[in-house]
Amino acid sequence: MAVQVTESTTAPATPDASAASVDLGPAAALSCRECGERFDLGPIFACALCFGPLEVAYDLPTGDPQGLRERIEAGPDSIWRYAPLLPVPADVASKPNLNPGLTPLVRADRLAGELGVTGGLYVKDDSGNPTHSFKDRVVAIAVEAARAFGFTTLSCSSTGNLAGAVGAAAARAGFRSCVFIPHDLEAGKVVMAAVYGGELVAIEGTYDDVNRFCSELIGDSLGEGWGFVNVNLRPYYGEGSKTLAYEICEQLGWEIPDQIVIPIASGSQLTKIDKGLKELIKLGLVEDKPYKIFGAQAEGCSPVSRAFKDGHDVVRPVKPDTIAKSLAIGNPADGPYVLDIARRTGGAVEDVTDEQVVDAIKLLARTEGIFAETAGGVTVGVTRKLIETGQLDPARTTVVLNTGDGLKTLDAVAPTTGPTATIKPSLDAFRAAGLAG
Amino acid sequence: MAVQVTESTTAPATPDASAASVDLGPAAALSCRECGERFDLGPIFACALCFGPLEVAYDLPTGDPQGLRERIEAGPDSIWRYAPLLPVPADVASKPNLNPGLTPLVRADRLAGELGVTGGLYVKDDSGNPTHSFKDRVVAIAVEAARAFGFTTLSCSSTGNLAGAVGAAAARAGFRSCVFIPHDLEAGKVVMAAVYGGELVAIEGTYDDVNRFCSELIGDSLGEGWGFVNVNLRPYYGEGSKTLAYEICEQLGWEIPDQIVIPIASGSQLTKIDKGLKELIKLGLVEDKPYKIFGAQAEGCSPVSRAFKDGHDVVRPVKPDTIAKSLAIGNPADGPYVLDIARRTGGAVEDVTDEQVVDAIKLLARTEGIFAETAGGVTVGVTRKLIETGQLDPARTTVVLNTGDGLKTLDAVAPTTGPTATIKPSLDAFRAAGLAG
Repeated sequence: MAVQVTESTTAPATPDASAASVDLGPAAALSCRECGERFDLGPIFACALCFGPLEVAYDLPTGDPQGLRERIEAGPDSIWRYAPLLPVPADVASKPNLNPGLTPLVRADRLAGELGVTGGLYVKDDSGNPTHSFKDRVVAIAVEAARAFGFTTLSCSSTGNLAGAVGAAAARAGFRSCVFIPHDLEAGKVVMAAVYGGELVAIEGTYDDVNRFCSELIGDSLGEGWGFVNVNLRPYYGEGSKTLAYEICEQLGWEIPDQIVIPIASGSQLTKIDKGLKELIKLGLVEDKPYKIFGAQAEGCSPVSRAFKDGHDVVRPVKPDTIAKSLAIGNPADGPYVLDIARRTGGAVEDVTDEQVVDAIKLLARTEGIFAETAGGVTVGVTRKLIETGQLDPARTTVVLNTGDGLKTLDAVAPTTGPTATIKPSLDAFRAAGLAG
Repeated sequence: MAVQVTESTTAPATPDASAASVDLGPAAALSCRECGERFDLGPIFACALCFGPLEVAYDLPTGDPQGLRERIEAGPDSIWRYAPLLPVPADVASKPNLNPGLTPLVRADRLAGELGVTGGLYVKDDSGNPTHSFKDRVVAIAVEAARAFGFTTLSCSSTGNLAGAVGAAAARAGFRSCVFIPHDLEAGKVVMAAVYGGELVAIEGTYDDVNRFCSELIGDSLGEGWGFVNVNLRPYYGEGSKTLAYEICEQLGWEIPDQIVIPIASGSQLTKIDKGLKELIKLGLVEDKPYKIFGAQAEGCSPVSRAFKDGHDVVRPVKPDTIAKSLAIGNPADGPYVLDIARRTGGAVEDVTDEQVVDAIKLLARTEGIFAETAGGVTVGVTRKLIETGQLDPARTTVVLNTGDGLKTLDAVAPTTGPTATIKPSLDAFRAAGLAG
């Protein structure tokens, strides 16, 4: 085993890397998800022919799956153990990076008891990442792409988790960062975004205004040398979510679980987990077997769930109104792909109310000692609903994702979470409270 | 390597375990740190002869250090890899527990550059634990002792980190929990303590009142069957801190660092890290070599630092007044032992102002992307001061502990952490702000 020593031999970004000299390991090209056209690796994100989204195409290692498994198992205790399957150079672990991943897959027997799951229930707890959300995975890959392309500033628009993940990753990697947020963000989130010392620009407007502004900036000379992790680096960034699939299977002894419940914001994470599973099968790292993928939304932002239930192929945008703010994307770019995957695998897309989200956060905390962000309340709540409605088979192995930390969304549970009793400091008062067990 | 699958085959606490049947692995007895008298393993914490503190005495595995190293390296990715050196049964990893530990040891080259450290600087980042503080380590051991002694309720008095760690650990392990807090705790901390669903009792009084009440409760029949992690389980609980020493050395390739900077609250953690290092040497797991141990306090609660500087052997209690609340123990029980260790190893005890704590939190965030609790600001700030005053040798390998997460002490940095600029969503406004890099 390799212990978690994080080496950070300084490796500053070099300017003007040309496509020819770009070393992103097994990444061979970008290809359009719609028309299949291929492009050289570069900081581009939309197909020049059809405007479809670009994704990374690989020359993956073939033959000798046992050798590859052993190579992975002997690798670092982070997502870099999967470097042979990611758009990163082979020596990625020697570069300064937050090294996220290999978060616990928690066998959740007490939660299973409450939900009636008999086939084995696991929580993939991504609150264990460096800034306590799955965003560290995607940002880590974007950092390496930014390094390869010679960018010197890392940027993003964000309302929360992503701002902190980018600020922290840029600090460790020695990039300048400049993050854009709406001006009326909660004070706590501003602190989490600003503490890493990068530029933090509050925009007088809504999150949509922030996004529009960032699009302008990318097209302008002012934004030259800037890597926007979720815009011009998006094809690389998105690949970070594949590592959730890799880890889950490795942690289950190189086996695909029967059912996985995944939150939906843009839908990217769900599609990339499916992509990761298919790669593992293709490489012979796991046995090919049927699996079902389930998407989870909050009722107050459930356009994909709505489309799934209505049998539609397109997703009608909504105006989000839910406490699950990290999932509150009313017009999810990957919605149609999510529908495809849920239907192809025999899964489903379901949603729960904010009240059910809060109940589920508390259920997970009470049974497993895991304090989840609202997004984790959404997946646990949806899992319960899927079982009650017969859509998820409780007799089969099930993995539920928790993608963030409850410390970041204290407000969601605060109104209904407090002391059992308030008493004077005396045994009589304690006896009267009836809490002696 | 062993992946981080957390098995939690249900193993409920059994009542009325007698001392004879207690299996706590290599733990052989309790011995008094003052007079050396030995006692059977049990839920006791003070010597019946001299009232000195009790600590665990072991029958440790001898001979074949290479075999032991390999056994450890092949073990779980948690503190349970060190089960042969801890007061826990050999099958501890099969019981439901939060499985803390094996947190990252981060090579901090950018921080080293700012501090002028040339001999290698590392941050042991314990914010990576399940509830994001080192308390998960000590509570995990207390849980196993509670199980062995047949306790069914886990308890503690707390003003923060410990309440959450006990609540979460009890939830996972299937214990009832009842945690006591002062009634005027900040709302966020109350949520963190209450969300795991155990009993949370707010006491109308100060933290001292809470502690006095808990002492009464332990002596009363009302408290029968209760394990107070930091009172009647304290000898076991404290041993959890040894794992910091084990991990640091293993992560450095089974080598002791030249210098370690450790925060001081009660002083227990520092003494246990020293104990852990001595055990590693005795077992032949690391080469014997000199090392220096440094203690770090906030100026507003610096009784040990004061005594060290004044050349005293006793520690005069103070009334704490500092933002580093997790270190604010005015009468640290292990203060005299800390003085012994700092003097014996050629280290020192130093303190920094609250302003220096905040600066150090930001320095660590800006250089390494690690957002530390105030206690981490204390150790980083003290490290800087120790270098400036010539007490710590920048040419030698140095490990600095960060024992908690900045998300828990946002208030400390909030007043001085915010956006660089607030602008309208236009390129002109952005250009005028002068932030294009």
